[in-house]
Amino acid sequence: MKLSRLGEFGLIERIGRMSASGPGVRIGIGDDSAWVNHAAGSSLITADLLIEGVHFDLKWTSLFALGYKSLAVNLSDIAAMGGMPAYAIVSLGIPAKFDSKQVDEFYRGFNSLARKYRVALIGGDTNIAPTLIISVCLIGAPPARPVRRSGANAGDDIYVTGTLGDSALGLEQLRKKSRAAKPAAVRQLLARHHRPTPRMTAGALLARENLATAMIDVSDGLLQDLAHICKASNTGAVIWHEQLPLSAAYRAISGKNGTRFALGGGEDYELLFCARPRHRRRVEKLPRLAQVKITRIGTCVAAQRGITVIDGSGKPLSLRLKGHDHFKKQ
Amino acid sequence: MKLSRLGEFGLIERIGRMSASGPGVRIGIGDDSAWVNHAAGSSLITADLLIEGVHFDLKWTSLFALGYKSLAVNLSDIAAMGGMPAYAIVSLGIPAKFDSKQVDEFYRGFNSLARKYRVALIGGDTNIAPTLIISVCLIGAPPARPVRRSGANAGDDIYVTGTLGDSALGLEQLRKKSRAAKPAAVRQLLARHHRPTPRMTAGALLARENLATAMIDVSDGLLQDLAHICKASNTGAVIWHEQLPLSAAYRAISGKNGTRFALGGGEDYELLFCARPRHRRRVEKLPRLAQVKITRIGTCVAAQRGITVIDGSGKPLSLRLKGHDHFKKQ
Repeated sequence: MKLSRLGEFGLIERIGRMSASGPGVRIGIGDDSAWVNHAAGSSLITADLLIEGVHFDLKWTSLFALGYKSLAVNLSDIAAMGGMPAYAIVSLGIPAKFDSKQVDEFYRGFNSLARKYRVALIGGDTNIAPTLIISVCLIGAPPARPVRRSGANAGDDIYVTGTLGDSALGLEQLRKKSRAAKPAAVRQLLARHHRPTPRMTAGALLARENLATAMIDVSDGLLQDLAHICKASNTGAVIWHEQLPLSAAYRAISGKNGTRFALGGGEDYELLFCARPRHRRRVEKLPRLAQVKITRIGTCVAAQRGITVIDGSGKPLSLRLKGHDHFKKQ
Repeated sequence: MKLSRLGEFGLIERIGRMSASGPGVRIGIGDDSAWVNHAAGSSLITADLLIEGVHFDLKWTSLFALGYKSLAVNLSDIAAMGGMPAYAIVSLGIPAKFDSKQVDEFYRGFNSLARKYRVALIGGDTNIAPTLIISVCLIGAPPARPVRRSGANAGDDIYVTGTLGDSALGLEQLRKKSRAAKPAAVRQLLARHHRPTPRMTAGALLARENLATAMIDVSDGLLQDLAHICKASNTGAVIWHEQLPLSAAYRAISGKNGTRFALGGGEDYELLFCARPRHRRRVEKLPRLAQVKITRIGTCVAAQRGITVIDGSGKPLSLRLKGHDHFKKQ
């Protein structure tokens, strides 16, 4: 149905019907504000704004994938504190030419991930807009001690979950006119780009067991997000180039790009964290519980040494990599 | 400073420095998620998305006014449930040509109102965007019994705070090439358009004293927001045309528009509520405490009678008014 026929309030009703309510929701979609319970007495709150033409291109992203990803990136921020999600607010700016089926597709993608993590969609705002705008606010329950960016010390190990660079290399394939001639590998990279897996269990376990001294999710690129930890913690870092976890698909496609996308690509939504060397054995047990690979990729050093990436012989690589900054000209 | 020089993370630091932290903020701006305390064990949550070219025009709105208004409209939603605000998340999409001073102006406007109501800005997201996009999520403490839209009964009185139509008539003056030749009155209308006053105290008192059976804030126009109450409560309504509260400025400027903007203009951010006739005397005492006029403008009737506006002799006015719907063609 045309949105112009359905109208704003018809659309809101439709979204309300599509969205499962969750435990603790006392008033959901359809009043001036939502009303929810908090078991913990405190909350974690995060938000992400995704804008067509800036963060995504509808030429190569489905509305289902956008719905999925707009929740996934917020889940990843909650995971990076060690929390569990509970409630989401979604505000959309929708181009006039959209059909209600397209809006449905967005919420189908969103709800597919919301159901998995028991996230209740409790409200938001819908507007007409020149381009598609997606604003998600996610509220979750914190662990006893949320993991900040600021707790790392020189000597701490540095770890990362999963593999790095798949998403950015996948995006590169979408942007290129001719894609690499390895369709299965390309498909895997694209799946990582469109449907990143938030590392909820790994994040929650790292917080619950007091293993992570500092943690962040890799959204702007490994080196840039590592720099956030180093700045907040007042440390430096040495990263072992040969230890960077790369997927088979990444190795098959990256070619002369090498580890460029793994070091600075962004949108990995893996967890980057630091831990004390004496906890190494306990960290090594996590992958089985969290069902994700965890790789030790470096070590924290004194702040004045900055951040270096070294090769197998200990020689610093000369890198001219920058992560993503929305305003700086690159 | 150019945003391209300041960079995304420089901007975030700058916003963090400008924003007062509040009680209960355990982690504010600068980590993956914010972490806040909830005294009540439950929260009210609301969100609004404002888009340049859809909701505002930078030709006639200052960034200070936009900052102020983007918080005010969310405060109004919390007021309409009878709650008090606590935490705000602000996500901005900012055109590349903006200067950091313009962003500062926005936050100065936002913070001027945030300080008044002790709202702590705890996080958000900043991005480059083709047009200015403002997404605010506001979290507050509920009263013991939040006031919904659905509690009105036939026979209930209908009230509204303040005066109606000022904001929409003010906007009309901005849009017209030649403004009415009554500068003082026009200035008053523009102030109501740019800096609406959220009716926090009135809303909180109506909830605390269990006076309002149903409540909504008038954002899309009196008749449309009344229709939301009537639909949710399964009632109809009769509105007394002669009782509509109009400001002196409105009367001075409206001319042949008459009550058009008061009935259907929108952006009033006044509270529209229903109350039992036996509570009439208690409602009449509220204006002194809440420091806002409250006018009885009609009565709830059986649902099948729909919504009518009647003149002094009891004759229904024939109205072809529609409130604001973002998608329906008007």
